[in-house]
Amino acid sequence: VKKRACQLGFVLLEERFDSYFFRAVLVEGLAMAAFLYNVITVIAYNDDGQLVGIDSDKQLLIALVFGLSIFMLVYFTAGLSGGNLNPAVTFSLVIGKRISVARGICYIASQMVGAIVGTAFALVIAGSDKFNAVNGGANILAVGVSAGQALFAEILSTAMVCLAVIIGLSSELWHLMEKTGMDILLPIAVGTAIVLAHMVLIPIDGCSVNPARSFGAAVISGEWADMWIFWVGPLIGGLVAILLWELILRPPQEVSRSAH
Amino acid sequence: VKKRACQLGFVLLEERFDSYFFRAVLVEGLAMAAFLYNVITVIAYNDDGQLVGIDSDKQLLIALVFGLSIFMLVYFTAGLSGGNLNPAVTFSLVIGKRISVARGICYIASQMVGAIVGTAFALVIAGSDKFNAVNGGANILAVGVSAGQALFAEILSTAMVCLAVIIGLSSELWHLMEKTGMDILLPIAVGTAIVLAHMVLIPIDGCSVNPARSFGAAVISGEWADMWIFWVGPLIGGLVAILLWELILRPPQEVSRSAH
Amino acid sequence: VKKRACQLGFVLLEERFDSYFFRAVLVEGLAMAAFLYNVITVIAYNDDGQLVGIDSDKQLLIALVFGLSIFMLVYFTAGLSGGNLNPAVTFSLVIGKRISVARGICYIASQMVGAIVGTAFALVIAGSDKFNAVNGGANILAVGVSAGQALFAEILSTAMVCLAVIIGLSSELWHLMEKTGMDILLPIAVGTAIVLAHMVLIPIDGCSVNPARSFGAAVISGEWADMWIFWVGPLIGGLVAILLWELILRPPQEVSRSAH
Amino acid sequence: VKKRACQLGFVLLEERFDSYFFRAVLVEGLAMAAFLYNVITVIAYNDDGQLVGIDSDKQLLIALVFGLSIFMLVYFTAGLSGGNLNPAVTFSLVIGKRISVARGICYIASQMVGAIVGTAFALVIAGSDKFNAVNGGANILAVGVSAGQALFAEILSTAMVCLAVIIGLSSELWHLMEKTGMDILLPIAVGTAIVLAHMVLIPIDGCSVNPARSFGAAVISGEWADMWIFWVGPLIGGLVAILLWELILRPPQEVSRSAH
Repeated sequence: VKKRACQLGFVLLEERFDSYFFRAVLVEGLAMAAFLYNVITVIAYNDDGQLVGIDSDKQLLIALVFGLSIFMLVYFTAGLSGGNLNPAVTFSLVIGKRISVARGICYIASQMVGAIVGTAFALVIAGSDKFNAVNGGANILAVGVSAGQALFAEILSTAMVCLAVIIGLSSELWHLMEKTGMDILLPIAVGTAIVLAHMVLIPIDGCSVNPARSFGAAVISGEWADMWIFWVGPLIGGLVAILLWELILRPPQEVSRSAH
Repeated sequence: VKKRACQLGFVLLEERFDSYFFRAVLVEGLAMAAFLYNVITVIAYNDDGQLVGIDSDKQLLIALVFGLSIFMLVYFTAGLSGGNLNPAVTFSLVIGKRISVARGICYIASQMVGAIVGTAFALVIAGSDKFNAVNGGANILAVGVSAGQALFAEILSTAMVCLAVIIGLSSELWHLMEKTGMDILLPIAVGTAIVLAHMVLIPIDGCSVNPARSFGAAVISGEWADMWIFWVGPLIGGLVAILLWELILRPPQEVSRSAH
Repeated sequence: VKKRACQLGFVLLEERFDSYFFRAVLVEGLAMAAFLYNVITVIAYNDDGQLVGIDSDKQLLIALVFGLSIFMLVYFTAGLSGGNLNPAVTFSLVIGKRISVARGICYIASQMVGAIVGTAFALVIAGSDKFNAVNGGANILAVGVSAGQALFAEILSTAMVCLAVIIGLSSELWHLMEKTGMDILLPIAVGTAIVLAHMVLIPIDGCSVNPARSFGAAVISGEWADMWIFWVGPLIGGLVAILLWELILRPPQEVSRSAH
Repeated sequence: VKKRACQLGFVLLEERFDSYFFRAVLVEGLAMAAFLYNVITVIAYNDDGQLVGIDSDKQLLIALVFGLSIFMLVYFTAGLSGGNLNPAVTFSLVIGKRISVARGICYIASQMVGAIVGTAFALVIAGSDKFNAVNGGANILAVGVSAGQALFAEILSTAMVCLAVIIGLSSELWHLMEKTGMDILLPIAVGTAIVLAHMVLIPIDGCSVNPARSFGAAVISGEWADMWIFWVGPLIGGLVAILLWELILRPPQEVSRSAH
């Protein structure tokens, strides 16, 4: 049976609030703490706070620590919470009815708390001198970059990150992917999208594509300038990704199967 | 039943021009826009326009942004359009009768339009100063390199890119690959071929191996010198790949199965 | 049948001491020798003994040689010994009742002997001048880093390494992983955790997360200062990982199946 | 039925000299030409001929071009020739009775001719000035390194390369690997072993671990000093690998199945 029903909208509370649910919420926060511990510690020990004109080897090192962390943490958490690890991804999945609004709100809150904890770990380990020298890894507009340029790039790069998750979870492509085995590439594709986002965006605004990452660094460092860009940009990017998939790209559903 | 029929030639119009077809054409263009946005923005923010004598860390960063983008976009589009993302690959598949001439022409046109859009995105995000300082990422012969040297290298490296796709789609090797699971390596192998091409060719001509990528950068930057090399080289490379496979390498067909 | 039995505790001697057992013990030592040969030789030929302020390209090279070695050696040994290659991992698996105390003690002893042999190989190949210039690759606190900071970071990073192994071997997630094919990512995830640990910890203490690696380098180089950190930190990290998994993260067991 | 029969020895001519055989021999040569084209061109355009004290970013770039080329070419040729691409691997497989002496001799001859062709391609593309500045990428002992040190390291690193192939093809581990899907990691593990060998050996002797690669570069560049090291070392390494596997590591055969 072929059908093509647009899946946009909201599911408010379609959840059983059992131990699986609360474990999943906790997992999102724990993984986010691990993520921020990794990346902010590396930035504090290696970076010099420069954005435009950053050395290519520093940029590659930092892009890889972000992307490899997300690859590893998606592998850890895919079977426990779905491995969102990003409010923009969670927002995108809520709009696409993959997860409920209730779950989405709990995930995002947990991600934000986890990001604060992870950044605090980095502060303890790096010490305040090194931490402050890089503004605690907070996102900020580079000199000479306009808010519009950063916003546009955040939207485009976040849309690719969210598409990696949406396509990986797409029940319409599962049949093909299982046949070819390509579904195992999901964590690798998401990690790669994160590496690419940081290759593009580090010299522009330090690269967010993840509002919780920006929020956690801002809480501990006190650097709140431009914060709206790192929420508005990624959330629009998540919206663009799910609209693009549901309205244009998604092929008609052939195999009935629950998405993930 | 073992048979060995050469598959070279053309299939003009063997297509159903349905919504799958038009979605596939659109997908090729969208992916190409994402590709050029990634790579040209990174070149504009990181490169200094130097080819021969480029720092090894800059070259590695740029080779990786090209290869990781193609890996991710082949993963995104393999189930929607076949993930060609390159006129040389499309040409090679047309000559090998994997796709029709009609589909090939539409794909290449869509790839070219997408490449223009993606380069324009990079211009907006980088600003004209940074964009012009690297000639908009346009391909051009490095000082001291002859047209013949660049053409020869473009042919060899593009042939490897096309062979990655052809071997990955080969029905004669599917049986073995499914048994060993190696078919999931297709997007990784294509991405790797792109990384290798850029490691070899960046100091020679900035590396094309993809006429649409060269065309998009030329339209926005106005840098058209040597453009013939970046069409003739890759297209000959695609031809070499399919001739090598069909006339020499391809084992007799044992399992009847439509190629992809 | 769903049940949720905590698996913490000890299994002392539940082993058949047959040729499989002794081969496994030998394999752990051989792999450890190969590991130390790779990493200490690279450190001796490339490093300048600097920790804080190390060049980003040196740090990336060294992080990769550690992580790629572990990936390759886990691939080699997973089917022969389970691919522990680290006393912290072995300790974690003993506490989680995945392997017996007897096997754990033999593995750790073999890993320590192997690490000495591998470091000796590196000394022979690099010569004593280059070897001594980097203290034989021994772990040591960087200037300005406190023991508490290093200990905290060793715990956090080792916990991630051990979680990669524990989750990869988890019978509760096998069903999901086999369905999605993600179980093949185990050696890649462990290798990635090692790369990340070295990106974070090289400027702090040279990065241990593996007491046998620190022990082998100390025996040959004679550099024993701070050695307690490189045993206490990783072993606590292994304990944190198994407690986190067994007490909080592990979902109820649905499919009865022997772990590993 | 469990049995444990040592597989060492020779099989002289157990081959059908049909079109499959000759295609396989041709494939080994073509892949070797592609390999040398990639690596020698990159060395000619990027290197400065320095071994000890090479910049870490140059070393990483060169190690990756070798390893990624082998990964890609093993993916291309595994289903056609078995993807040896190295006389040391072929020698190791002959001694382990995986392939006949006749096939081994033809493979090695084809690899040597292919290596000459690929190096000649690199000479044409780089021009004689750049080519000669790096001695045509020929292997040579670094200043201050003894023949014994280089020989020892060549043996150890080549043994790991050959073990990656032997373990990947091992019928005793196939059952486990198919269950876990780990067999698809074979081309990745071989490529990784090559990356690691180059991280270790570039500052020592430029890294051979492949006599045909050294031979091809020597023929075109005329640099024959130390050539014996690059045949004796890798061939002993191949011997060590197969002896280690057959006499010590290999578990008893449980499932009767032809290797590869």
